[in-house]
Amino acid sequence: MGDPLRIVLVTPRNPLNIGAAARAMSNFGFTQLRLVNPYEVAFKEAVSAVNAGYILEKAEVFQTVGEAVADCSLVAGTTAAARRDLHLPLYRLEPAGQLIKEQLLAERPVALLFGSEKFGLSNEDMSHCHWLLRIPSREEHGSMNLGQAVAICLYELRRDAEVAAQRFPPAQNATAHDYERITALLREVLGQAGYLNPSTAESSELKVRRLVRRLGLPANDADTWLGILRQILWKTSQRD
Amino acid sequence: MGDPLRIVLVTPRNPLNIGAAARAMSNFGFTQLRLVNPYEVAFKEAVSAVNAGYILEKAEVFQTVGEAVADCSLVAGTTAAARRDLHLPLYRLEPAGQLIKEQLLAERPVALLFGSEKFGLSNEDMSHCHWLLRIPSREEHGSMNLGQAVAICLYELRRDAEVAAQRFPPAQNATAHDYERITALLREVLGQAGYLNPSTAESSELKVRRLVRRLGLPANDADTWLGILRQILWKTSQRD
Repeated sequence: MGDPLRIVLVTPRNPLNIGAAARAMSNFGFTQLRLVNPYEVAFKEAVSAVNAGYILEKAEVFQTVGEAVADCSLVAGTTAAARRDLHLPLYRLEPAGQLIKEQLLAERPVALLFGSEKFGLSNEDMSHCHWLLRIPSREEHGSMNLGQAVAICLYELRRDAEVAAQRFPPAQNATAHDYERITALLREVLGQAGYLNPSTAESSELKVRRLVRRLGLPANDADTWLGILRQILWKTSQRD
Repeated sequence: MGDPLRIVLVTPRNPLNIGAAARAMSNFGFTQLRLVNPYEVAFKEAVSAVNAGYILEKAEVFQTVGEAVADCSLVAGTTAAARRDLHLPLYRLEPAGQLIKEQLLAERPVALLFGSEKFGLSNEDMSHCHWLLRIPSREEHGSMNLGQAVAICLYELRRDAEVAAQRFPPAQNATAHDYERITALLREVLGQAGYLNPSTAESSELKVRRLVRRLGLPANDADTWLGILRQILWKTSQRD
């Protein structure tokens, strides 16, 4: 059945936002754009839709929300309101995204509704929804730009929890042998340079070893550092 | 120390994008915006920054990336490239966001760099970074709108894994008693209406019970449905 997610923009007023929504859809691999009663039918000119013309060209235009969502078995609306008398369940995007993903995986058509830039979804629009979702923006400034709101919702749908659970691969650090070779060379350089006091040589040795051990030294860079120190040692030796 | 995250826009060219970045920062409660060598210093006019003027007013302008990130202990760059010869670790946003969050939690200043709309971060810019992150957009169309990219990264930083782990609260369904009362009334209505065949009354009873049981019926709506059925029953009784 192709792409089961329908992005439904209800009475969008700004062509730039329609274009931005289409671009985000293209970025995240969604293709089904529907517009309800758009303010400007000149939306195809939406200039910011870089590489997303194919989405705008096949976008469908409807006169009512009811028609735009008729083939969908789940209709979810977006709202910036943390709480008003919505008469509908209101979830944060994180768990809402999970439920939408399950529906999409089962290839059941889902409509995700976004209201107009200025007023959001009306009560009439919301009455077509099974539930509402809210992007976790600050309550003091919850209202988001339409293109950004679409992008965030689509990112949440493409987000990979497995990747999220992975930590950074442990940095491949240089071996103790490399650290020790660098420590020895650095001690020699510091001796040549007059930085180390010969009378405290033993405690200095420990200090230098600890100093070098505290460096995060990638294995691949060990030879470069050894080369640098050898060159410095050669230069400082010449001065004698 | 206040807000430890610095959003650094490197050579941004479009005031609308600067405004959109500031608006997303306000939406998600970040305040420290830095601009490196912006194309138009008229960025303060950025019109789309609804309610985000306070961020633009205190935004700092630098001539070089080095100056803009000087006080940061972690410098992360963003890139749309799935792979080019970057000489740096490249992570998806999900795990990268986790590491940034840990730094912010420890109140260590972090710089998050975004390149220009057209070219992204240059190799010179990237040489100031500890590592790079990539929003998981399609490889065929990876390049995102700057304002949308900023919004998605900030959403990831505000995303709450605990909320994400929560499933939807189980719908509070009507009790078996309510279902049974509705079943009984509906059977009576259907009898009155001539929908049920008296000769198959017993099997019909089971069919109606199963039909009603398959409805997802919220506890709070049970009385409304009972009232509706009583009213219908009253009306159909009158007709006799």
